[in-house]
Amino acid sequence: MPQATVDRASEFLGGLFTSLTERGRSLFKSSSDQPKSKDELIALGEALLSRRGEATGVAMAHQLLSGYDGAAEDDQLGFLDALAEQFGPDLAELTAAVENFHVSGASPDAASQLLKAAEPRRQELIRRLNLAPGGTASLVRMREAVLTHLRDHPQLRNVDDDFVHLFTSWFNRGFLVLQRIDWTTPANILEKIIRYEQVHAIRNWDDLRARLAPADRRCYGFFHPQLVDEPLIFVEVALTLDRPGAIAPLLDLERAPISPKDATTAVFYSISNTQKGLAGISFGNFLIKQVVEEIKRELPNVQSFVTLSPVPGFAKWLKQERADEASALLDDSARAELAVLDAPDWQDDPERADHIKPLLLPLAAAYFLQAKNARGLPLDPVARFHLGNGARLESLNFLGDRSPNGMRQSHGLMVNYLYALGEIEANHEAFAERAQIAAASAVRKQLPSKPLSSEPRKTNGKTSAPLAIAPPA
Amino acid sequence: MPQATVDRASEFLGGLFTSLTERGRSLFKSSSDQPKSKDELIALGEALLSRRGEATGVAMAHQLLSGYDGAAEDDQLGFLDALAEQFGPDLAELTAAVENFHVSGASPDAASQLLKAAEPRRQELIRRLNLAPGGTASLVRMREAVLTHLRDHPQLRNVDDDFVHLFTSWFNRGFLVLQRIDWTTPANILEKIIRYEQVHAIRNWDDLRARLAPADRRCYGFFHPQLVDEPLIFVEVALTLDRPGAIAPLLDLERAPISPKDATTAVFYSISNTQKGLAGISFGNFLIKQVVEEIKRELPNVQSFVTLSPVPGFAKWLKQERADEASALLDDSARAELAVLDAPDWQDDPERADHIKPLLLPLAAAYFLQAKNARGLPLDPVARFHLGNGARLESLNFLGDRSPNGMRQSHGLMVNYLYALGEIEANHEAFAERAQIAAASAVRKQLPSKPLSSEPRKTNGKTSAPLAIAPPA
Amino acid sequence: MPQATVDRASEFLGGLFTSLTERGRSLFKSSSDQPKSKDELIALGEALLSRRGEATGVAMAHQLLSGYDGAAEDDQLGFLDALAEQFGPDLAELTAAVENFHVSGASPDAASQLLKAAEPRRQELIRRLNLAPGGTASLVRMREAVLTHLRDHPQLRNVDDDFVHLFTSWFNRGFLVLQRIDWTTPANILEKIIRYEQVHAIRNWDDLRARLAPADRRCYGFFHPQLVDEPLIFVEVALTLDRPGAIAPLLDLERAPISPKDATTAVFYSISNTQKGLAGISFGNFLIKQVVEEIKRELPNVQSFVTLSPVPGFAKWLKQERADEASALLDDSARAELAVLDAPDWQDDPERADHIKPLLLPLAAAYFLQAKNARGLPLDPVARFHLGNGARLESLNFLGDRSPNGMRQSHGLMVNYLYALGEIEANHEAFAERAQIAAASAVRKQLPSKPLSSEPRKTNGKTSAPLAIAPPA
Amino acid sequence: MPQATVDRASEFLGGLFTSLTERGRSLFKSSSDQPKSKDELIALGEALLSRRGEATGVAMAHQLLSGYDGAAEDDQLGFLDALAEQFGPDLAELTAAVENFHVSGASPDAASQLLKAAEPRRQELIRRLNLAPGGTASLVRMREAVLTHLRDHPQLRNVDDDFVHLFTSWFNRGFLVLQRIDWTTPANILEKIIRYEQVHAIRNWDDLRARLAPADRRCYGFFHPQLVDEPLIFVEVALTLDRPGAIAPLLDLERAPISPKDATTAVFYSISNTQKGLAGISFGNFLIKQVVEEIKRELPNVQSFVTLSPVPGFAKWLKQERADEASALLDDSARAELAVLDAPDWQDDPERADHIKPLLLPLAAAYFLQAKNARGLPLDPVARFHLGNGARLESLNFLGDRSPNGMRQSHGLMVNYLYALGEIEANHEAFAERAQIAAASAVRKQLPSKPLSSEPRKTNGKTSAPLAIAPPA
Repeated sequence: MPQATVDRASEFLGGLFTSLTERGRSLFKSSSDQPKSKDELIALGEALLSRRGEATGVAMAHQLLSGYDGAAEDDQLGFLDALAEQFGPDLAELTAAVENFHVSGASPDAASQLLKAAEPRRQELIRRLNLAPGGTASLVRMREAVLTHLRDHPQLRNVDDDFVHLFTSWFNRGFLVLQRIDWTTPANILEKIIRYEQVHAIRNWDDLRARLAPADRRCYGFFHPQLVDEPLIFVEVALTLDRPGAIAPLLDLERAPISPKDATTAVFYSISNTQKGLAGISFGNFLIKQVVEEIKRELPNVQSFVTLSPVPGFAKWLKQERADEASALLDDSARAELAVLDAPDWQDDPERADHIKPLLLPLAAAYFLQAKNARGLPLDPVARFHLGNGARLESLNFLGDRSPNGMRQSHGLMVNYLYALGEIEANHEAFAERAQIAAASAVRKQLPSKPLSSEPRKTNGKTSAPLAIAPPA
Repeated sequence: MPQATVDRASEFLGGLFTSLTERGRSLFKSSSDQPKSKDELIALGEALLSRRGEATGVAMAHQLLSGYDGAAEDDQLGFLDALAEQFGPDLAELTAAVENFHVSGASPDAASQLLKAAEPRRQELIRRLNLAPGGTASLVRMREAVLTHLRDHPQLRNVDDDFVHLFTSWFNRGFLVLQRIDWTTPANILEKIIRYEQVHAIRNWDDLRARLAPADRRCYGFFHPQLVDEPLIFVEVALTLDRPGAIAPLLDLERAPISPKDATTAVFYSISNTQKGLAGISFGNFLIKQVVEEIKRELPNVQSFVTLSPVPGFAKWLKQERADEASALLDDSARAELAVLDAPDWQDDPERADHIKPLLLPLAAAYFLQAKNARGLPLDPVARFHLGNGARLESLNFLGDRSPNGMRQSHGLMVNYLYALGEIEANHEAFAERAQIAAASAVRKQLPSKPLSSEPRKTNGKTSAPLAIAPPA
Repeated sequence: MPQATVDRASEFLGGLFTSLTERGRSLFKSSSDQPKSKDELIALGEALLSRRGEATGVAMAHQLLSGYDGAAEDDQLGFLDALAEQFGPDLAELTAAVENFHVSGASPDAASQLLKAAEPRRQELIRRLNLAPGGTASLVRMREAVLTHLRDHPQLRNVDDDFVHLFTSWFNRGFLVLQRIDWTTPANILEKIIRYEQVHAIRNWDDLRARLAPADRRCYGFFHPQLVDEPLIFVEVALTLDRPGAIAPLLDLERAPISPKDATTAVFYSISNTQKGLAGISFGNFLIKQVVEEIKRELPNVQSFVTLSPVPGFAKWLKQERADEASALLDDSARAELAVLDAPDWQDDPERADHIKPLLLPLAAAYFLQAKNARGLPLDPVARFHLGNGARLESLNFLGDRSPNGMRQSHGLMVNYLYALGEIEANHEAFAERAQIAAASAVRKQLPSKPLSSEPRKTNGKTSAPLAIAPPA
Repeated sequence: MPQATVDRASEFLGGLFTSLTERGRSLFKSSSDQPKSKDELIALGEALLSRRGEATGVAMAHQLLSGYDGAAEDDQLGFLDALAEQFGPDLAELTAAVENFHVSGASPDAASQLLKAAEPRRQELIRRLNLAPGGTASLVRMREAVLTHLRDHPQLRNVDDDFVHLFTSWFNRGFLVLQRIDWTTPANILEKIIRYEQVHAIRNWDDLRARLAPADRRCYGFFHPQLVDEPLIFVEVALTLDRPGAIAPLLDLERAPISPKDATTAVFYSISNTQKGLAGISFGNFLIKQVVEEIKRELPNVQSFVTLSPVPGFAKWLKQERADEASALLDDSARAELAVLDAPDWQDDPERADHIKPLLLPLAAAYFLQAKNARGLPLDPVARFHLGNGARLESLNFLGDRSPNGMRQSHGLMVNYLYALGEIEANHEAFAERAQIAAASAVRKQLPSKPLSSEPRKTNGKTSAPLAIAPPA
């Protein structure tokens, strides 16, 4: 018999959030919402920080934000620059606090005084701007502009720091809410899923439906009470009978769904951040862990949690290796062999594909396990994300993504990361403290043991000839 | 025909907040929720700030907070002290930043570096504790404890500053939601209204019903998405045909409600903060203004927005004046006359009451308009609140509150403050910048013009004999 | 981690039902809502059935119902009588259909024609009255009036039949929704629980809270979409460690709740119908079965589902037996002994209670198993309800209810009925077809085997002396 | 400031309806849901009507309906036939009742007895089938099958009558809820809007978005609590500055929306029933009237409520007129002229279009005002619907719909019906009682006054030469 009782306390809240939606915000539109000049914006900012601002804070914050939103780009940029300069800390007060600290010694009180004196006035200004209906969304967009201009306006770096400081408090994980997204979700949310999907583009509503509606599909996002019609991040999940190596069967519009009760594996095949203005405030780690909990509760038979992930940096790295005559990974014959990768549609020629596979997978293993960036971490950003979360590199999948984008960025390579609950903490610590990479032995075995060549060998430990040892520089 | 369509986007959110309710939190209870010793709590705090904490932050934050909640008071206090000392800023780093600032001069970058170095480690710790389900509520309680111990543990002042800093961000007005509270509100919320009412105690559920259910009553509160079953502040409103001078008729269980369509006046007769742990983070100003907007939209015929307010400091101040032989406000005959105030139940004797009224009201006018605290502001805290919001002292109501509490704190005096929309900003600025008090001329006319005596005169400017001028010290 | 995702489709509906609530209905009040005379009501009824009624049906239905609600009792009764007479079937048409049937024979078409011709015009009138906002609630009240007047106005019997016919469709179980009622339920619903409780009166809100808020208590009701702020029937449930024999410990305000996870037994200790106007349209059977399903899903460890039930007819029956000198159940000594039941507060005297117990329980067994009404069914109405549902009489509890009402109606006796899922269907059939009563052998063993006397013996089938067979008359 | 308070009573209900949604129903799927043979279905039906059915009604109803849904078409049809025959009235009982009526005369009691005896057993069976979760939806589909087979199985007529009888009660307007449908509506509802739109096909989600999301568009539907993810009927509305004559500008994806505050006119441009199984249970009348109320409340400046309607029967009728040599409407030259209507894409040739217009509009006027069906009503079904609701035929719009479908069914003609609130009742009565058609004088003036010919004249009553009177036969 179906479940019919629910938690009433949550229903009580159902109507609380109208004011925070697009429709709610539109109610607030008024005739004073004129675009403003840079000087008007600055004057409004000063007024909002003044005593007068206390009496009419909400209206004034709204006026400034809507005036900014409509302003010419030059005026916007002028306002951002003013945030950096005019709305910095009170330097006289700060200098006095420093003197005091210098003189009286590093007491907690002196430190506390310093902390207050060092706080830029723009922090309070941003807090007051957040009074406006829809203020948070406007401020996220404003920071997106700060990021855009950072290269040419380095003075905005401090402004950005303050945005990050405040957003870190406002978007604290404790304020985020996990929400399942499915075919009964409002269309205005769903169209954003289409727009924001970054990994495997959603072509249209039929494609979206195929990812949300079938019984063996799940999608979850984090929402913030102040940005209710915007998922901050979302993950798409397929429930399967085993660990998949390729993306196309998962996205096939014609596939037959399985019963969720039969599923043993949950595959995280796409995870997308949505708000550029929240760059650097990380949610993905929490999202994956909470979704794992969620699925475990709903479907106890699902025991294996893996990703099916792209390898966005592989093709670029390999191109550099191929160009680098000093590379110890490749000998001349291998280089010649790899030319096939430059041929269009080589992946559709089974013979060529079979031939290149035993070359490509060891190179991929080297890319993940040996190639490092300046900080000693894996080159691949997706690898850094999942390994940093405590996942393990579980397998390399040749031609897992035959889409144009997949071929371009990784010669079709996809990988699985495994979230093994018992190992997450240890993996995380080893990676965070010693940059040590958790990888399945099957992956480690694919590492080349000497410069790769085109001589006969077998892959996956099956039939490969011994490989030359080729530790990367 | 009744309204049947609603904002769907808000409904989408209806279920989002289960995890934040009491019931949701109870789901999270686990066997590891043991009381912890001070040392365990500190160790958990350090772990949560370490790299290891990143992987299992939610669980660890929950463990610390539930361990703290169950801990002995000594252990709790020990943990708070550790917050003050062990989790302060990194003094070495801070000293270096100060040196740098001292040497290289007050550049924005040096200021920014100082700001970071001066941030106590406990700020990040508190942010991470907020990851736990129900974390915000626990932290509000923790700060309540900080406030309790402040007198005996002055080192907690800096801890309190950090709580205020973070709560100011978290409880930014932009994150609060106005919610009407009525007889269809869930009982678990309503019992908190009974518990938290601070002005005119709610005796039982019948009393509560009489304040919420009739068509001419309103109640509104601010809620925070993270504390969904706790109103942060609420205001009770009566819709009336004129400005009331006494509270008893408003609270009378037997009164006949009027039709809201006939009402011309909205009377804010009780406003209560609920969370001691949020002391100093002010919402009342915003609440009153938003409720005014709300009522204006619903009932355009309501044109007058007044309070019916207690005068909590009047009796205490008058006692001091009577004891102070140097007081220029009272001559001997007036002092003798005022002895009636010490008689029990004098208010029930019409003759005595009539006699004392023309003495008491001028004293009340002096109390509001002339008596000042050390900062030059009115002595009365309720007056400071409403005048600071931009309201005007509109009238003095003799024996407006005959309850024991009303007689005790103010000899029965109540007052109305008027929120005149066109004046609010000017009133606020005049008060904030020049401590200038907005008062109706009818109130000003009641000021005594010479030491008050018991000689025949009339009040309310009608037939009173001229009073001596008696400016207070 | 707490559950945070919900069924969105249900949220979509959250706002659908405003129009059906008390508040919604109040919006519809208009100046034309005047009390109406009998003749006006009848004229409105005719107009509503006419062509003109099609164009303005909603308004006209509202006018009639609000006019009826406000009308004098004589006018109301006059309208009900008109329903019986003026709004009966079209007798001419019916006579023609009968003729046709008579002549042409009992074909399905002739039967169908008869069915149409025999439908009284008031059925369509009642359907049209239901167009009004709140119409269903008004019609339920109207039928309550019909029932009240039935004895003196026997012609209303046919009107009642039509109400039952329509209500049976409208309140079909398929349209009812099971809803858990707890401490987060809106207060306007909860006050109705207090008002409607029929078995163990709820004294005040604290008593209500003690029945709803603890973790080991449940309450469920059926709601109808058209009567959303009215539970139609509700049941109160205690989760316990064993089958209770007395009500007081369950209702004790000071008791310590147990963890629901430890509970093995769900006790249905109160079930109340709420709408007199729905008398005869039965929901209790469905409610108990669905609540059993609900609890089984939530708490798999709960294996035993029993009631703790009153015995409303026992004292009355026993009085008759005692008065009936021909009763084969009692000999003179037993009659004398039973006089103790007439003493006030005998239950508080352990000696008397111990003495009367072995007399009273066999009589109770006889009351349940042998005493029958005219239809051959048990005298006790509660027994007929639960036995008819397929439950089994499981045990007789001496002094299970020491409240004045319990002493008065059943000399303190309570009983348990057991809902054993595997037996329900067989029990139901045996009872429905052969009036066969399912009872535990422990109950059967308590049957007296000869006229009861005061001679020494023991109860509960343990060591009692043989009792004479004493079939009731 | 945005609206933030809502009706809490409606939120309380938010979760009530999970059990009624697609997802809820899917939870109920069980292993016993096997397709059933005709004989099994009939046996289940008999069991459900028996005493045994009372104990396990819900499960048995579910079994029958899911068994029917999965059954072969022959078995389904066999079951429907059994409904007609085996589950008819008890003819013996009915014959007895007829006898009694015949003998004892037409008393109300005899009529009541007849009514009961004439009720076919299938009525109770259908009521019991409705116990199953999702039962109502299954029964609506079952009646759709009845309608499909009616022509070949005339015995199903009586079954259909019983479905109509019950559905009329269950889908009483009082149980329907008006719900606005917009871009925040769940996608599973929206895809049904796409599927069910019958007037101007919705090509894709972009087209849907253009009809729902802009500020000057509205869509409303009636929902039933038991069929929550199915709109029963919906209407699409455009808010405009004047009465439109053509559909294409309204549906133009590129058009610029206006502010709803500026709108003076609400245009109902599409109204679609969705459930074939509810044919004959009419909602459209109520829907339009309630939407008018809804818009009037939201936008008081909207004063004019018109449709922009298709004319589905015009081309067919005109073809007959042209073929009918006896037609008094057309002379030979007109017939010749009208040949242009047979040319493909004549509407794109301005010259031809200008030429044919003064011929076509008088014919349209005649089609609406003079052509009648067998019951003396207008030929056009859309006209019958709106005129029957009390609307007035307001204007004839040449080439209002240039889509292939529009050209095919009405040579591009569209019309406006005006819902003038003050006239609705009078119009309705005149139409219902005297088949009198409400039409604007501008339309009446377009009636041809003699057989139409191709001679020079002008239309719109402005400068046309006198036309011969040509009343249709």
